[in-house]
Amino acid sequence: MAEMVSNKQVILNNHVSGFPKESDMSMTSSTIELKVPHDSNGVLVKNLYLSCDPYMRPRMKKLEGSYVESFKPGSPISGYGVAKVLDSGHPGFKKGDLVWGMTGWEEYTLIATPQSLFKIQHTDVPLSYYTGILGMPGMTAYAGFYEVCSPKPGEYVFISAASGAVGQLVGQFAKLLGCYVVGSAGSKGKVDLLKNKFGFDEAFNYKEEEDLNAALKRYFPEGIDIYFENVGGKMLDAVLLNLRLRGRIAVCGMISQYNLDKPEGVYNLMTLISKRIRMEGFLVLDYYHLYPKYLEMIIPHIKEGKIVYVEDTAEGLESAPPALIGLFSGRNVGKQVVAVACE
Amino acid sequence: MAEMVSNKQVILNNHVSGFPKESDMSMTSSTIELKVPHDSNGVLVKNLYLSCDPYMRPRMKKLEGSYVESFKPGSPISGYGVAKVLDSGHPGFKKGDLVWGMTGWEEYTLIATPQSLFKIQHTDVPLSYYTGILGMPGMTAYAGFYEVCSPKPGEYVFISAASGAVGQLVGQFAKLLGCYVVGSAGSKGKVDLLKNKFGFDEAFNYKEEEDLNAALKRYFPEGIDIYFENVGGKMLDAVLLNLRLRGRIAVCGMISQYNLDKPEGVYNLMTLISKRIRMEGFLVLDYYHLYPKYLEMIIPHIKEGKIVYVEDTAEGLESAPPALIGLFSGRNVGKQVVAVACE
Repeated sequence: MAEMVSNKQVILNNHVSGFPKESDMSMTSSTIELKVPHDSNGVLVKNLYLSCDPYMRPRMKKLEGSYVESFKPGSPISGYGVAKVLDSGHPGFKKGDLVWGMTGWEEYTLIATPQSLFKIQHTDVPLSYYTGILGMPGMTAYAGFYEVCSPKPGEYVFISAASGAVGQLVGQFAKLLGCYVVGSAGSKGKVDLLKNKFGFDEAFNYKEEEDLNAALKRYFPEGIDIYFENVGGKMLDAVLLNLRLRGRIAVCGMISQYNLDKPEGVYNLMTLISKRIRMEGFLVLDYYHLYPKYLEMIIPHIKEGKIVYVEDTAEGLESAPPALIGLFSGRNVGKQVVAVACE
Repeated sequence: MAEMVSNKQVILNNHVSGFPKESDMSMTSSTIELKVPHDSNGVLVKNLYLSCDPYMRPRMKKLEGSYVESFKPGSPISGYGVAKVLDSGHPGFKKGDLVWGMTGWEEYTLIATPQSLFKIQHTDVPLSYYTGILGMPGMTAYAGFYEVCSPKPGEYVFISAASGAVGQLVGQFAKLLGCYVVGSAGSKGKVDLLKNKFGFDEAFNYKEEEDLNAALKRYFPEGIDIYFENVGGKMLDAVLLNLRLRGRIAVCGMISQYNLDKPEGVYNLMTLISKRIRMEGFLVLDYYHLYPKYLEMIIPHIKEGKIVYVEDTAEGLESAPPALIGLFSGRNVGKQVVAVACE
């Protein structure tokens, strides 16, 4: 008989509309046996780091026909995380393995389909990186920039939500390639980070700009070749007025729209025609086959300090709900991680 | 000394805002010598057919940084047409040649840069076809469908303004490839034409649909792979809700928006992400190098009756202003041509 332990969990109370609140989630505790059931080929993991990501907002409401499932009210929230295998019913995993992938917002999780997990091979980098630069956001930046944007050296690149988990990497990738890179973010501190830590050529605080079109004209007098879209709404509309011939928009996310009952209108799509713009939505799920190639590129860059990564770490499972909510007001500076336990 | 003749012309009075009216243009008459000036390498042509095209609406206002020039108030309108060379200062053209390309809305035009004209080789088809199926709209349909839409047999294709100069061809190309094709148009007569003349699988009158989303769900219960966009606005928004995974939108035009002071908002762009949609604007100007290849394909299809083309012909230069205006209320049935003179 294996050990039975208590298992703190973060539960979604009900489907959410409008701006999510801490009270939409609650802490609870159940017990769990630290062993995989006999007939299961799952793995039982101890969660070390949990990831707060914007795509989790749509999962808080009732979704139909989406690429992700809605969270189930009354059940623990699920999301990307880094975990340690305590017991395994799957031949590909053994006790002690470190993994990243979909897990639960709780101390321990029985993962029924471990084939979707990634085994962590490189442990000479911070383990939390597997929720960010070495995890889903890293692959999102890599696939979105190199596979969707068709970037060329010297091009003019604009990134919104640029200090976030994905944006900070896209900007650094673009600089490595020799692009001119400008980012927008929502505070002076983030703007400083973009310019001084991540090496963006320019950055601005969108909250201080009355006229986003004018702001973009100031930073891109010759126009924008590539827009890495993380926010949607008014910023997208302003970018549409400032694209160059054959510009590209990689649509990664639209965080400014996720909490609205009705999204904002976008008015300037006619420029797609005259400027021959390609606007393309993408999901990282379609690109995970490139993960080994990405690791080969990114690990040396990290070790040589050519790419840096800023994380905002909240301590303890109890801090997960406010950390998640904070994404939507931009409270996080860099990638929002929750440290749940030590190895 | 060459013959001096009178030259009727259609003049744009002033830049236009809102819905264009016949009174925005006026008929005038000047005189012209039917001879190219000594120092010119232009050609002097007699205009036979003039083309009315939606892209001419933006040219009626003051444009900056566009791919086309604004019409000059007080000067004749310019547009695509079929013409006969009466005199040539250019070694590539001689008296009697038939050409199509940019000319003036007048009886005779001195074309200063004839290198942009196409010489007409095939004269065993109606000459007016060079304003439509064998001219700019034909190349638009060809490039837009084959080069931008990445179509595959069996895919679900939706076309708006489907009985127009471009739409009727896109639908027939899609049928030839083995796609399922539905078109929207603005009258019962046009819907009949789509189903009975052009061989669309289904068609509907968008003016009779209270809920465009519901209409599209009715015709595409499994969703739309390809949307050939000619109208913009509410139709685009409804299509965004009905696209399939990896759907494509070729943005050819947005005629519903051209007369508005402020374009309508488009609200459903978030589906670009979850469905991995590519939305791409294009201009036929970028594809004219494919014209010989297009002719090779299309001429046999026309002769064998595999592709048909419906024109709406207005007689006489005086009928050109109402014919052009009529495009924006959908008065035309098929390609709007103005017959100016006989060969």
